[in-house]
Amino acid sequence: MKIALDIMGGDFAPIQTTLGAIEAYKELGDDVKLVLIGDEPQIRSILNENGSNPENFEIVHTSEVIGMSEHPTKAISKKTDSSIAVGFGLLKAGKVDAFASAGNTGAMFVGAAFSVRPIEGVTRPAIAALVPKEKGGYGVILDVGANADCKPEHLAQFGILGSLFAKSVFDIENPKVGLMNLGEEEEKGSILTQAANQLLKNTPQINFAGNIEGRDLFNDKADVIVCDGFTGNVILKEAESFYYYIRKRGIQDEFFDRFNYENYGGSPILGVNAPVVIGHGISNAKAIKNMVLMTRDMVTSNLTNKITKIFKEAVV
Amino acid sequence: MKIALDIMGGDFAPIQTTLGAIEAYKELGDDVKLVLIGDEPQIRSILNENGSNPENFEIVHTSEVIGMSEHPTKAISKKTDSSIAVGFGLLKAGKVDAFASAGNTGAMFVGAAFSVRPIEGVTRPAIAALVPKEKGGYGVILDVGANADCKPEHLAQFGILGSLFAKSVFDIENPKVGLMNLGEEEEKGSILTQAANQLLKNTPQINFAGNIEGRDLFNDKADVIVCDGFTGNVILKEAESFYYYIRKRGIQDEFFDRFNYENYGGSPILGVNAPVVIGHGISNAKAIKNMVLMTRDMVTSNLTNKITKIFKEAVV
Repeated sequence: MKIALDIMGGDFAPIQTTLGAIEAYKELGDDVKLVLIGDEPQIRSILNENGSNPENFEIVHTSEVIGMSEHPTKAISKKTDSSIAVGFGLLKAGKVDAFASAGNTGAMFVGAAFSVRPIEGVTRPAIAALVPKEKGGYGVILDVGANADCKPEHLAQFGILGSLFAKSVFDIENPKVGLMNLGEEEEKGSILTQAANQLLKNTPQINFAGNIEGRDLFNDKADVIVCDGFTGNVILKEAESFYYYIRKRGIQDEFFDRFNYENYGGSPILGVNAPVVIGHGISNAKAIKNMVLMTRDMVTSNLTNKITKIFKEAVV
Repeated sequence: MKIALDIMGGDFAPIQTTLGAIEAYKELGDDVKLVLIGDEPQIRSILNENGSNPENFEIVHTSEVIGMSEHPTKAISKKTDSSIAVGFGLLKAGKVDAFASAGNTGAMFVGAAFSVRPIEGVTRPAIAALVPKEKGGYGVILDVGANADCKPEHLAQFGILGSLFAKSVFDIENPKVGLMNLGEEEEKGSILTQAANQLLKNTPQINFAGNIEGRDLFNDKADVIVCDGFTGNVILKEAESFYYYIRKRGIQDEFFDRFNYENYGGSPILGVNAPVVIGHGISNAKAIKNMVLMTRDMVTSNLTNKITKIFKEAVV
């Protein structure tokens, strides 16, 4: 298996990304090769300085970088020798099995959508995020920002995508899918969630647990939380801000600590023809390492094939 | 000034509501009369048991109660002798200046909309909620559930309503109005927030601070946070759940403690022709007292007239 890692993406690239690659290498088996994409002289120098043999990796040199605030579509089409563009080129050509980057989120999403493309039948690939559960482990919430405006059928598809992710990567046997809403009763909600509730109820591929509310994010009611990308983005950033206030106060707590993105490292793009993971812009070496491990798990679990198979059978 | 208080509304009525009235009485001046609406024998007995002279209050007897989970419209039209229906009757007739209840939220909203009615020019009255600010004090967020689906012009009106509330009740001189969005940049967002951003920018009655994100709820960026009722409801319940986890762990902190609804007691309905405040269903005596005090502040500050005046002048 080959996993491409964008060495130039993120606020602390290339140092933290390269250090993350070194950390990941120590945990990955011999069957996994990390392909480092970025400025080769810099990568070699950081590897050497940190006593890591460059032979442990494949290095693909690139001369351009897409900045964190560049316009995604423009940047990816103009900067053809950027680490993100080259990464997706390798992925599309089948020369790597997965691609992970802590760089420009928009460019990563656009790159995935235009290179490996959505899986047949998936109308809207989504960005998923992990939510820590109080009882332990993580749930998954999607979409968290790729699709600000959604139709009911998109939410139903998110339910299937999130369900397969939870099953394959988190080994949750029959994940409960909850629809984020402003009340539990079936008839409550916006026009979107009222219609989505009916669709999700009639989606045989998932274990629909009904409507959930903002207070149910971290409890047992749902393993997979479905919402439009606007709502998901607000939810996620509110949770991040709570973690910020907790941390600022020096509060140590096992549950709260799991809000730290460093522990899981990235947000998968679900519904495209290869595992793609986006890391937090402020990723440090630990976050990069965990992003690589999550990417590995997506490959190992054969998630893409499982999604392809279910969408071939299902008409949603 | 007369403030009507629903004694039968809330999970712990009539005991906690009556005890709350006793607490409020101690803090209110002679110029404020509390009008207790509910089962008179029960009210008198609770007052007597707690050494409070029934002469300190006006008591209006009612024989019916709207349950917390009853259908709002049906309940309020059928149960004409319920405390909520009678309260709005008194408010409409001008026999009281304001009405507060910790009862059925939907019935309170419907009651307000159909009795005192929306202020001329206000297309959608909204339910506002308070958000604690880390630096101290509270901001206000609206809508938090009355309007699940909104148009851009509704959000612009929420900006004016929230702004006047923050100015009048919180004495914030030139409140900053932020639009909840998934990015700060003007061009980011859903179809709704992109259009609302343009409208808010061109609303001269407010101090528009631009887009804010989920992480900005509790910081300085905005005193008034504008969003559709779906988003606001999810935001509010997520914050409530955080407070729940904080409290469960016995964490004491001045900022986190201000998430406790007991400290402010209620959510005002903004945009109707009289001050109306809805309390949390689980309100205890302290919450009821603070709900009454907030209601008093809404009357004292002449908020309804201020809203009426600005909407006469403005065409939004």
